[in-house]
Amino acid sequence: MLTKDPLLLMIPGPVSIHQRIYEALARPITGHRTKEFIELFGETVRLLKKVIDTENDVFVIAGSSTAAMDAAIANLVSPKEKVLSIVQGKFSERWREITEAYGGVPVVLDVEWGKAVREDSLIEMLESDKDIKYITICHNETSTGILNPAERIGQIAREYDKILIVDAVTSVGGDYVYPDKWNFDVLVTGSQKCLGIPPGLGYIWVGPRAWEIINQREFIPSYYLNLKSYKKSFEKDGDPPFTTSVPLVVAQNESLKMIFEEGLENRIQRHRRMAQATRIGAKAIGLELFAEEEYASNTVTAINVPEGIPQKDLLNNIQKLGVLLTGGQDRIKDKIFRIAHMNTVQEKDIFLTFSALELSLLKLGFSFVPGSGIGAIEQFFAPQ
Amino acid sequence: MLTKDPLLLMIPGPVSIHQRIYEALARPITGHRTKEFIELFGETVRLLKKVIDTENDVFVIAGSSTAAMDAAIANLVSPKEKVLSIVQGKFSERWREITEAYGGVPVVLDVEWGKAVREDSLIEMLESDKDIKYITICHNETSTGILNPAERIGQIAREYDKILIVDAVTSVGGDYVYPDKWNFDVLVTGSQKCLGIPPGLGYIWVGPRAWEIINQREFIPSYYLNLKSYKKSFEKDGDPPFTTSVPLVVAQNESLKMIFEEGLENRIQRHRRMAQATRIGAKAIGLELFAEEEYASNTVTAINVPEGIPQKDLLNNIQKLGVLLTGGQDRIKDKIFRIAHMNTVQEKDIFLTFSALELSLLKLGFSFVPGSGIGAIEQFFAPQ
Repeated sequence: MLTKDPLLLMIPGPVSIHQRIYEALARPITGHRTKEFIELFGETVRLLKKVIDTENDVFVIAGSSTAAMDAAIANLVSPKEKVLSIVQGKFSERWREITEAYGGVPVVLDVEWGKAVREDSLIEMLESDKDIKYITICHNETSTGILNPAERIGQIAREYDKILIVDAVTSVGGDYVYPDKWNFDVLVTGSQKCLGIPPGLGYIWVGPRAWEIINQREFIPSYYLNLKSYKKSFEKDGDPPFTTSVPLVVAQNESLKMIFEEGLENRIQRHRRMAQATRIGAKAIGLELFAEEEYASNTVTAINVPEGIPQKDLLNNIQKLGVLLTGGQDRIKDKIFRIAHMNTVQEKDIFLTFSALELSLLKLGFSFVPGSGIGAIEQFFAPQ
Repeated sequence: MLTKDPLLLMIPGPVSIHQRIYEALARPITGHRTKEFIELFGETVRLLKKVIDTENDVFVIAGSSTAAMDAAIANLVSPKEKVLSIVQGKFSERWREITEAYGGVPVVLDVEWGKAVREDSLIEMLESDKDIKYITICHNETSTGILNPAERIGQIAREYDKILIVDAVTSVGGDYVYPDKWNFDVLVTGSQKCLGIPPGLGYIWVGPRAWEIINQREFIPSYYLNLKSYKKSFEKDGDPPFTTSVPLVVAQNESLKMIFEEGLENRIQRHRRMAQATRIGAKAIGLELFAEEEYASNTVTAINVPEGIPQKDLLNNIQKLGVLLTGGQDRIKDKIFRIAHMNTVQEKDIFLTFSALELSLLKLGFSFVPGSGIGAIEQFFAPQ
């Protein structure tokens, strides 16, 4: 019945995007070395820096966010060096895989999926293996809906003099992330989540301690992702070393302007409200949250699939109503479904999502009071 | 005076694109794992294969064409292995740089810039160093406007049992390229040249002899560009292993459909006609072609900047008239200027380009008969 409209993407990337971004994508293309484009590129980098409140380098890589993750490890970790991989979901697991791809030695701190990392277990690992040089972590673990206490982890990393490499792909632009103040050394993020445009650009922030290591390395086993090339090219010509995706940069520029028109603080608070509404609605229906609530993500919520309800049928029914949700990944693939509340998400999107969720649950025989989720969300939104 | 219109991009990428592509870019985004998108992705790969007449694997990498070049070397060349790098311009030089980045040993066959590679000098190199395992070449050297005799080079490579790695970034979609029939082992290309969309996607074709090598390698020093992951993901799920750029894939799908609506043969002949017209016009004005004409590229023409004419002023004047051309690169940066005739290029674009070129030359005091270039081009087009 809703098929005339595009699907509402309540998945953790690509996100539904604003009409202004479509218009930016369709703007007549220009050369990537024109004065006009280089100015726009420079402004885009400045605005990206403003989102994470930094004066340090941010580079734009044409590619997925995974390209930016790959760049972090390729440029820093030498073969045989030890990396403490905090693994608590698919994306933090990816850090471990990339570390291995470059001959680094991952020392895995296994955290139960759906839980945040605990300070004491981190310290214990660092005490027990003094050869650890790096720590990798996923700030907002998209696969489980957990937001790790990154500021505290940054303090610990600095106390123990470790290099902290952070995947902030699904937090930057939707939640607080301050790599300088929080003692990160490398942060990676991407275009297609809370920064509001389609996939195709990865971003990497590099702090001074990370540069020290990169600059000392004689041999960096990558060409396309060699950060020295990105730095040299940006300082010399104000653009990336290889042809970037012009329309995506134009779109990112537009989206960053929209972020500051709304106000970053307002935007983050909006994400938090939508996340809270989602959790309140889910619980009111009688659904269980997968992630521990104290560390619940503000950009994506993971919900357990109720016993006896086939996950595929649930998601298909919801999609027929015009809303795209997604299941889990890897070991929890069928166990959960996820509602992402990123970018342009607002009250009406939460209502549509929950209407579709409730109707689908009802059709599939789940026992709950129809309207109870929506009702609870209304009560949450009413006083605001 | 033409500023109300977008610049006509007569540069070798990004190219001016068709209105249908802008509309495709602005189509409502969908999830990259939806059935709908995976079908479109599969069709896009099939159409890409059709352009180069192959049944072998073609993979789509979110990134610049350089990412695809990087993937070729990273996946094939082990440290210490010898690669015959045919260097005759900036992009063939890039193969040498990437080879070094992965610890390969480039054996350089230096070809004068603006000349095609000669069969005898290639054979001589192969005879003189039996340890050479790979050959890298740029099919259409964009920096000099040379089209190498790739079919003949393929024969030689096969006779000597070498693995041939070809950059066909600026030939695929605008000229004949048949990796199977021509005995290539790897071919890379990109989205933003004759395939008609903006930059942001790289493509890599991998033949069976290359797969043999890749499959035997235990350790591939890349994560994002590991071709085994691309193969595995495509065979399992029909999509790339990492989030691809949804709107660019949608645009590429549309552009490929347009290529076959026009007819690939018609399209190639159109590119050839526009290239010929460009050479005829340049010579009629009294300009000198940089590349030897027997091996002149059909997608980009390099022209010597006439003595006494400042290149920057020439290009700026032309840009003021609504046409973007570009200079040279590296050692011939100021010596030449280039007119690319790619993608949607047609008669009217050649006329506008030459009107702007003639007027600018006239203003800068170059001595020629005004209208002579245009006149010669008219005479060339008239009988067609």
